[in-house]
Amino acid sequence: MDAKRDIDYRDAFLPTMEGLSRAGALLVAADSQGRASGMTIGWGSIGIIWRLPVFTVLVRHSRNTLHLVEEAGDFTVNVLPPELDEALAYWGKVSGRDVDKWANSGLRPAPSRRVRSPIVEQGILHFECRVIYRGDMIPGNLQPDLVSKLYASGDYHRIYYGEILACYGAP
Amino acid sequence: MDAKRDIDYRDAFLPTMEGLSRAGALLVAADSQGRASGMTIGWGSIGIIWRLPVFTVLVRHSRNTLHLVEEAGDFTVNVLPPELDEALAYWGKVSGRDVDKWANSGLRPAPSRRVRSPIVEQGILHFECRVIYRGDMIPGNLQPDLVSKLYASGDYHRIYYGEILACYGAP
Repeated sequence: MDAKRDIDYRDAFLPTMEGLSRAGALLVAADSQGRASGMTIGWGSIGIIWRLPVFTVLVRHSRNTLHLVEEAGDFTVNVLPPELDEALAYWGKVSGRDVDKWANSGLRPAPSRRVRSPIVEQGILHFECRVIYRGDMIPGNLQPDLVSKLYASGDYHRIYYGEILACYGAP
Repeated sequence: MDAKRDIDYRDAFLPTMEGLSRAGALLVAADSQGRASGMTIGWGSIGIIWRLPVFTVLVRHSRNTLHLVEEAGDFTVNVLPPELDEALAYWGKVSGRDVDKWANSGLRPAPSRRVRSPIVEQGILHFECRVIYRGDMIPGNLQPDLVSKLYASGDYHRIYYGEILACYGAP
């Protein structure tokens, strides 16, 4: 039973930006054994690059999610309803190396339509993305005030560009 | 006289994507002498990165526009009305190294509100952006089918991330 409907990714831009700005969205990916986890993201970008619809996300090198996205070669971005803000906060605080984020938050993974990484069943908006390009941030190329504000620890981001293969949500 | 009104950059997403997909938009920047030129772009991405509103654009290394953006440290993205499609096609075909694109197309530069690079006076939607990060594409990090389709000549893109300092358009 899949009551979620296809959405033009461009029409999903506003609710996605609202989600990112408010409490975040969930970036989810699965390792080679199919074990999925992920993290809360507050940043993201949507557009057309390489003639394809692309969702751009950033993952710090220290994050468990980095190796999940590398192993999967894909990821999903999931916007949740406001009543699940607490789960979003939890997924942003702990590491999937230490705990089962699903069990502890009450969120459930559900099969994706086009990628290996699962979506979050309780989500209201989903992007399924295949990694087509990745770029590690080069510290010297970033505005210096942002380096001191966001990268004092030296833990830089890898920037993932995912072709949007599917976008759908609650009607 | 500036009749153009501020627009929340998120509300400008849809018309910008429509412009990029249809006939393109104009990326404009000025060199250190204030001489402005630019190019037609069909790719771009909008979102929140580093806690800032960001417009991402790509410029090939061979392009005259690359050194303009480097010298300016900023750029504008301009969506034009459909009746100026011919000018957009022209700006995509010739190089600012050889010709004065403004004079030959009938487009006119106009002062920006927040950056050095000018906007296109006849535009209906404008983004003024300050470069906060740049990343040169690494060929081996791109999906191989895209390498052969888009980079057969080896002329890769530099990816510019511009903080959106102003967004406005015709009412």
